[in-house]
Amino acid sequence: MTREQARKAAEELVSRMTVEEMAGQLLFEADAVERLGVPAYNWWNEALHGVARGGTATVFPQAIGMAAMFDDEFLEEIADAISTEARARYNVLSAEGDRDIYHGLTMWSPNINIFRDPRWGRGHETYGEDPYLTSCMGKAFVHGLQGDGETMKTSACAKHFAVHSGPEAIRHEFNAIASPKDLTETYLPAFKALVCEAGVESVMGAYNRTNGEPCCASPALMKLLREDWGFEGHFVSDCWAIRDFHENHKVTSTPVESVKMALKAGCDLNCGCTYQHIIAAYKEGMITEEDIRRSAVRVLTTRFLLGILGDEGSEYDTIPYEVVECEEHLRMAYLAALKSCVLLKNNEILPLDTDKCGTIGVIGPNANNRSSLIGNYHGVPSRYVTVLEGIQDITKGTNRVLYSQGCDLFRDAVEELAKPDDRIAEAVTVAKRSDTVILVLGLDETLEGEEGDTGNSYNSGDKEDLLLPAPQRRLLKKVLEVGKPTVVILMAGSSIDLTEAEENADAVLLSWYPGAHGGKAVADILFGKESPSGKLPLTFYRNEALKEMPEFTDYTMSGRTYRYYQGVPLYPFGYGLTYGKCSILDLNVKDSTAYVRVKNEGEAETDEVIELYLHDEDSQYAPPNPVLCGFRRIRLRAKEEGAFTLTIDPDAFTVVDEMGARIPGSGKWKLFAGFGAPDKRTEELTGRKPVSAMITR
Amino acid sequence: MTREQARKAAEELVSRMTVEEMAGQLLFEADAVERLGVPAYNWWNEALHGVARGGTATVFPQAIGMAAMFDDEFLEEIADAISTEARARYNVLSAEGDRDIYHGLTMWSPNINIFRDPRWGRGHETYGEDPYLTSCMGKAFVHGLQGDGETMKTSACAKHFAVHSGPEAIRHEFNAIASPKDLTETYLPAFKALVCEAGVESVMGAYNRTNGEPCCASPALMKLLREDWGFEGHFVSDCWAIRDFHENHKVTSTPVESVKMALKAGCDLNCGCTYQHIIAAYKEGMITEEDIRRSAVRVLTTRFLLGILGDEGSEYDTIPYEVVECEEHLRMAYLAALKSCVLLKNNEILPLDTDKCGTIGVIGPNANNRSSLIGNYHGVPSRYVTVLEGIQDITKGTNRVLYSQGCDLFRDAVEELAKPDDRIAEAVTVAKRSDTVILVLGLDETLEGEEGDTGNSYNSGDKEDLLLPAPQRRLLKKVLEVGKPTVVILMAGSSIDLTEAEENADAVLLSWYPGAHGGKAVADILFGKESPSGKLPLTFYRNEALKEMPEFTDYTMSGRTYRYYQGVPLYPFGYGLTYGKCSILDLNVKDSTAYVRVKNEGEAETDEVIELYLHDEDSQYAPPNPVLCGFRRIRLRAKEEGAFTLTIDPDAFTVVDEMGARIPGSGKWKLFAGFGAPDKRTEELTGRKPVSAMITR
Repeated sequence: MTREQARKAAEELVSRMTVEEMAGQLLFEADAVERLGVPAYNWWNEALHGVARGGTATVFPQAIGMAAMFDDEFLEEIADAISTEARARYNVLSAEGDRDIYHGLTMWSPNINIFRDPRWGRGHETYGEDPYLTSCMGKAFVHGLQGDGETMKTSACAKHFAVHSGPEAIRHEFNAIASPKDLTETYLPAFKALVCEAGVESVMGAYNRTNGEPCCASPALMKLLREDWGFEGHFVSDCWAIRDFHENHKVTSTPVESVKMALKAGCDLNCGCTYQHIIAAYKEGMITEEDIRRSAVRVLTTRFLLGILGDEGSEYDTIPYEVVECEEHLRMAYLAALKSCVLLKNNEILPLDTDKCGTIGVIGPNANNRSSLIGNYHGVPSRYVTVLEGIQDITKGTNRVLYSQGCDLFRDAVEELAKPDDRIAEAVTVAKRSDTVILVLGLDETLEGEEGDTGNSYNSGDKEDLLLPAPQRRLLKKVLEVGKPTVVILMAGSSIDLTEAEENADAVLLSWYPGAHGGKAVADILFGKESPSGKLPLTFYRNEALKEMPEFTDYTMSGRTYRYYQGVPLYPFGYGLTYGKCSILDLNVKDSTAYVRVKNEGEAETDEVIELYLHDEDSQYAPPNPVLCGFRRIRLRAKEEGAFTLTIDPDAFTVVDEMGARIPGSGKWKLFAGFGAPDKRTEELTGRKPVSAMITR
Repeated sequence: MTREQARKAAEELVSRMTVEEMAGQLLFEADAVERLGVPAYNWWNEALHGVARGGTATVFPQAIGMAAMFDDEFLEEIADAISTEARARYNVLSAEGDRDIYHGLTMWSPNINIFRDPRWGRGHETYGEDPYLTSCMGKAFVHGLQGDGETMKTSACAKHFAVHSGPEAIRHEFNAIASPKDLTETYLPAFKALVCEAGVESVMGAYNRTNGEPCCASPALMKLLREDWGFEGHFVSDCWAIRDFHENHKVTSTPVESVKMALKAGCDLNCGCTYQHIIAAYKEGMITEEDIRRSAVRVLTTRFLLGILGDEGSEYDTIPYEVVECEEHLRMAYLAALKSCVLLKNNEILPLDTDKCGTIGVIGPNANNRSSLIGNYHGVPSRYVTVLEGIQDITKGTNRVLYSQGCDLFRDAVEELAKPDDRIAEAVTVAKRSDTVILVLGLDETLEGEEGDTGNSYNSGDKEDLLLPAPQRRLLKKVLEVGKPTVVILMAGSSIDLTEAEENADAVLLSWYPGAHGGKAVADILFGKESPSGKLPLTFYRNEALKEMPEFTDYTMSGRTYRYYQGVPLYPFGYGLTYGKCSILDLNVKDSTAYVRVKNEGEAETDEVIELYLHDEDSQYAPPNPVLCGFRRIRLRAKEEGAFTLTIDPDAFTVVDEMGARIPGSGKWKLFAGFGAPDKRTEELTGRKPVSAMITR
């Protein structure tokens, strides 16, 4: 069914509805209209890295980890698998009469906000700090979810439109001030790409105001979306965001005024309850039947596109339940975890050899923590493999594994009545009695997450700084002091200052929240069954960087992210080691295509990621540092050489002026090709220089 | 070191202490007296089913499950293993300077209270409802912990002295009224046995008052303990129980009065803070130096017995850390889980055959719940095997396993915003698409536990009734309605009304809280690698039984437990099926020894438990139903026959009069031998009659 046909069907259906019936379609818990064969439908479902919150589903690595794959093709396959599971679940659950929340086909994913400030608690839901990478990953995810069938497989949603990125604690009343340049250059490209190139069916407005206008009713944002970009799908509010208009933003005084403001602006669907006042607003003459009809047509168009209204059905109606957590999907989740792990340091200790590493001490609050496998917005896996379990399984019969929890994730003592550090003597004992130590630290969704959803109530899900929680810092120090060969594994979704580990551990591996079976992937990397190959989709700063950086509430990009940060990061954007030893043999460019030859001089087969960065050498509008404009994941056997072509982002050869206009650059461009960004810190960490070429355009 | 030598050493040491230094020894966080070489020591440690709360340790099945083994010899081995781990942990942790709570050698285990009322939240910490079984298990546990070495391996503690068994919510102000007969016959025998026969080093007073006297300072109870039973160890208060004297029981008005009352009565050690007022009480002349000295000598005697004071040390000082969770201990925990599981119903569906059971649907909130493996008062296992994981592992490569959480343990919906029963459509789907359904229900420590420790705050850890939580009842009903071959597994530590499962499921297996690897044991039983052989150490009532039973606050035994309950239980005390088919060939008695010949007529090798019950046919003082007086766990191969001797409890040939005196019975005794209690319901469930013999004595 084409959009045109779907809209016609929706118009026809809506034409037979009363104004009350139309209004009843604009709440996320949409009413049934039985006389017209319209079943009740709950619009709210989530699929950030697997069908979430509805029950059993394959749980892939958290979004930030999938960004670290730098592999949009694979992400599209993953999103397709997620969509398949969503359909399978919808088929059986709706057959059982369950059409409640988290069981529908309208996915409020992906989150394509820019991970602007490293403290933001929801940053791990995003694809990181780079607009181009975010656009690529976001488009792939939307394509994967929505498919290219006769009907839409599931609908995706680009959220949170726009500029949204913390602080969580004040999101309901906050006004983000973003300059025209930052909007065009940083905050909006991914949304534009998802609308214009990926045909995303839905856009969700953010909680905050942006430049004074509440995002769920912003004339400026709506004009961009509908007029400039030609968005034809439906617009949904973030949950209870319209209530914020009168309760927190104070831009209106009453619910009916908020209804008027949102609906008139073009917010079609309300996650929340304020649209329960639509009929009141209508009766008071604040909105017209036409306002209501317009939105009703849009949301019902989506349902027709999904094939869940009318008699035609969908080609996906026969997807059987058995695809949920099928072997193929579990295998994909495992591969995604492998590809997303980022090796940050390796003093040649990795990969470990079971014959040589003796007794293994696995220590730390995330070593056996199921929660740190699955991040937030997750489904229910039917099997978890923690890092500890992964290590136990791979060393079974060859190595004794000793374990200590080491400390709580954030509380000073594990046991209520104990003195602080009540597991550290045990941890030190385990380290002393081991030949190899694996220390598993980090966070989970109770420490970085969403306002209201988190255990970290003192900060509403945001981090206060970039340090590990204090008890983990003490544990790390004490265990490193024992002096055994030590690998630090960080399970977290954001930038953490790992200076202590970088300086004193033998290896540092970042696993993110690697999905339900992530511990198996981590163990397979630790023991060399597979080479790590993930790259940082964000900058790992040292904690002191926060002093120079703009305030969390300041949305200027100046001094933020690898494009604008002028200090020396701990680990730069784009960085990540492998067990191979790839080098760029040469780089040639023709039009918007780069030709790169690569050789793996090492002894281990590995994936690598060729990254292209472009810098306008002369424009006053260019960001100070080169900008990612292309990437490609490759695989090379030991000693293998290969030739690869990469397409350069066409927008890369532009700059954005202070008025927010995208204009041609100076014409003098420098293109870099490497396995990381072209900066000194990356060179220092990798011992490799990027190859570059000058381009005149 | 003998007790005599230890007491002398303690006396000598105490003689050199100031009164303040002596007083500092009577708090659970005992002060160091550096000038005398006395290190600080925290007395509080727990070892109910493994070293608890201190860190990594082997986690055995919860105590109630270990009682279901009816195997005191094996329990002694387990307690010895626990004690070994405690020593190993103590050796390394004290070497690291950590002498804090949960790291010492003085174990506040076992809990030998009688599981008098099926609602009691802490009942699963006990060995059930029978005084004889409790005595046997308790003695074995004490022997195992304390050992028979030169020094005491760890010290055990008989708690909570006496009569303590709920309700949790009012324990700090409650007065339990127990008749002299019930005291002698039910509440005290296990304490007497542990003191007089097992030499338990420590006794803990209960929170409540008993017959008007707060248990931590009860002249009546103290007389029994010290004068009648000759208890020579130290007496410790339950935690903050002495504060209850003035704050809740109101038997005193101030902390110093409470100090006086407790110390004068003979409560040597205070878990809590009230003994911080000892010196104040002393200065006010309320207690004497001699009062303080007496208790200081007692507690320091224990430390000398443990070899942790003085220069001599202990033969256990060289136990290496590596024994913690060593293969042998993990194997024992697994065997304990096997022996403790009780098969309550089997329509021949069990054991399952992987070739025949097709797709397996595993459903329920406890299927993949780590918490329900380990009960309360638990250590940290380095590996959990849930029931779901056990089933996945054993069927890997042969059967597809589908999983649904089904519902929350007790909340109406799993997801916060969802309507009730938000996983039931999924569960029904899984059931419909499976050939065999395994439904894993029950509780965990958040639902049955201790006041203050539990998530079940509406009832302070006690159950309100014997029903499964409402969402689980709805799940059970809906899944059974699908009509597939269904096995129900109950993970709980107390009597639950399983009428619905008994009537409509094909098999019912009670796993208790089976320990960290319990899921493997359950799976091995389900799939016939081992026969179940546990027996109920308590009565499984139907919920209506509560109507006839005395109030929860009424401590009369009349109408309670298998000895006094006159109704028909769902599953009787002592009951449990196997995959074998054992029968008693004959029974002979000579003096206090029973000779029993047994044949396993079945096709499966199995453990069984021969149970002996005795009834005084003529005495007005005899409980209405026969009483357990002997048991022996046996093993028989298919078709094997064996002859076994059992010792009958000498006390069994007595009755207790209304004044609480144990007197000879009528002389006309009937002895029953079987694999369960001699009651109609057991006969109905097993199709077997017990064999009996008349004895005149």
